[in-house]
Amino acid sequence: MLKATIDADILKESIDAISALVTECRLHTDENGISTRAVDTANVAMVSLSLKKEAFSSFESTKSELGLDIAKLKNIFGMMGKNEPISLELPDNGQKLRVSFEGYRYSITLLDPNTIRKDPNPPSIDLPGRVVLSGADLYNSIKAAAVVSDKIALGIDPAQQIFYMAAEGDTDHIRKEFGKNEVTFLKNVEARSLFSLDYLKDMGKVMSRAEEVEISIGIDHPVKFAFYIAGGKGYVEYLLAPRIEAD
Amino acid sequence: MLKATIDADILKESIDAISALVTECRLHTDENGISTRAVDTANVAMVSLSLKKEAFSSFESTKSELGLDIAKLKNIFGMMGKNEPISLELPDNGQKLRVSFEGYRYSITLLDPNTIRKDPNPPSIDLPGRVVLSGADLYNSIKAAAVVSDKIALGIDPAQQIFYMAAEGDTDHIRKEFGKNEVTFLKNVEARSLFSLDYLKDMGKVMSRAEEVEISIGIDHPVKFAFYIAGGKGYVEYLLAPRIEAD
Amino acid sequence: MLKATIDADILKESIDAISALVTECRLHTDENGISTRAVDTANVAMVSLSLKKEAFSSFESTKSELGLDIAKLKNIFGMMGKNEPISLELPDNGQKLRVSFEGYRYSITLLDPNTIRKDPNPPSIDLPGRVVLSGADLYNSIKAAAVVSDKIALGIDPAQQIFYMAAEGDTDHIRKEFGKNEVTFLKNVEARSLFSLDYLKDMGKVMSRAEEVEISIGIDHPVKFAFYIAGGKGYVEYLLAPRIEAD
Repeated sequence: MLKATIDADILKESIDAISALVTECRLHTDENGISTRAVDTANVAMVSLSLKKEAFSSFESTKSELGLDIAKLKNIFGMMGKNEPISLELPDNGQKLRVSFEGYRYSITLLDPNTIRKDPNPPSIDLPGRVVLSGADLYNSIKAAAVVSDKIALGIDPAQQIFYMAAEGDTDHIRKEFGKNEVTFLKNVEARSLFSLDYLKDMGKVMSRAEEVEISIGIDHPVKFAFYIAGGKGYVEYLLAPRIEAD
Repeated sequence: MLKATIDADILKESIDAISALVTECRLHTDENGISTRAVDTANVAMVSLSLKKEAFSSFESTKSELGLDIAKLKNIFGMMGKNEPISLELPDNGQKLRVSFEGYRYSITLLDPNTIRKDPNPPSIDLPGRVVLSGADLYNSIKAAAVVSDKIALGIDPAQQIFYMAAEGDTDHIRKEFGKNEVTFLKNVEARSLFSLDYLKDMGKVMSRAEEVEISIGIDHPVKFAFYIAGGKGYVEYLLAPRIEAD
Repeated sequence: MLKATIDADILKESIDAISALVTECRLHTDENGISTRAVDTANVAMVSLSLKKEAFSSFESTKSELGLDIAKLKNIFGMMGKNEPISLELPDNGQKLRVSFEGYRYSITLLDPNTIRKDPNPPSIDLPGRVVLSGADLYNSIKAAAVVSDKIALGIDPAQQIFYMAAEGDTDHIRKEFGKNEVTFLKNVEARSLFSLDYLKDMGKVMSRAEEVEISIGIDHPVKFAFYIAGGKGYVEYLLAPRIEAD
């Protein structure tokens, strides 16, 4: 059983964060809120999202697992007004999630959770470098890199206290450096890894709304992006595997 | 002979209403104004439009029939400013309609009316249910239905005094109900028919500008939409055949 | 060696003027500024551009020739803010032009000038008719003509003191006349030539920003468009070969 009301903007923000990587997911609900964890089909990226019950204007739920077709749910976002209250309702053992707003009653058949990939276990990895920067700055760098290449290097130069991104095209390359004024260095440790921009562009768009994104990074290791959504009442982590630097 | 001046917006509104269904039409002119009636190539929908001479800032015409290439005429809409006066001129027995505005002289060769389908006779059908709602509300419902399906059911539930639209997708469906606050019930009679959204989307876009659209509807019968254009000096009727509900 | 700073808008305006015709060019630099001249691959149109050192906020250069990949350079325009200072740097015998702005360091490998077509010699032709009109008016006429045809006639009717454009479609045609109020007639001499709109649309977009464009034209001869950029500190000339009027 689920019976909740949520602001349209928070719902969209949360669903967008998941849909950057997957089109369906297992959504866990209990009396404290909802959460999900999913990896993309290529096993390259993982998203974890949790939304406390405080992120909802009203929330009541038993412990359950829902198979959610995210792509279908996104279809109706265009109909929702900004800041409109959206009501979500699922009866006990119900197979259809009812989404109501503004005289509309949208009903979506849930997927059998068993047909969706099991929740992945987060890998235990040590990512020694850690910086915090604005999501907008991060996304702008990603977009800039995408102009010349399909890969981006992210790194920390501890001697110069610089967090940088760099991308190499065939005949041109681009580099952007962030100094102490733009970045908070939680752990100023040497790091550099290469990532696919395909993934980063989608994640970056979501992160661009976050005031602060905490980036954990190593040497030829995955990168972790962590940020709050829903005014601090929701939390998202992205984990992205590195690409091998071939040259 | 035709010699008239019309506001660009009224011209566009009128031509758009026709072009939602057909790309060419027989335009009838006489001293009182202009009118046309046309069915689409698939014989599924019909449009009737009339524009009184009062819709023009100046109007002079003999009785005649013009073969109008609507698609060509629409080409030049982008050049016309908002509320710009557009002058239309056709000499006696002329084969070219001259459209002048802002230093431009656009001349379009008329089609031989005999090459265009004859004016259809409006079918005499009885559509017992009748409601009036805003064109914007109607169009929003149509767009919402299009998100989940290519068909839409329109109906009246007389017991509850509700006008509704409903659309079924494979795994999701959407329903919108309009009560007495949003709809005027001229005849609160049971009705429900299914329609193709392909047609309704094009018609709906035109109707979205109308403050009031009168909808006449039956059970597995066509639907008729009637509304004024040109500030009440023009009138449009759409008739759309139903689709058979297969299930 | 080149070391210069330029306003982003002026850089974009200059590069856009060249890229309307070619994707790469030989850029000549000396202590007084930069210049280029290039013909398109089909030998139909030519662009000449010069930018005085006064168009830069700082400028220092030795005499040299650079092979510039214009398409690549344009890639990064989207990243540049409006009126942002852009720094350009090329060391002596350097093969990479460094473009810096807002923490970004973009570096583009120059092309070997010998792989780029030699600078064309401007043909010595006599174009007797000459008018001046606003770039916006010119571009609007070009766009209007493109609606009905892929060719446009430009001409002067000296008896009526009219500069006109005319375009013929299969069943429709359009004509726009400019009288003394909209055009300055420097040489009111009979002229009429036909041109490909493919080229004119791209050129027209660039010229639409110019307050005044000087048009030199003859009978079945090329047309020359000349206009200032960079607040008068840069100058562009387009030359376009005529098409033969076939009918």
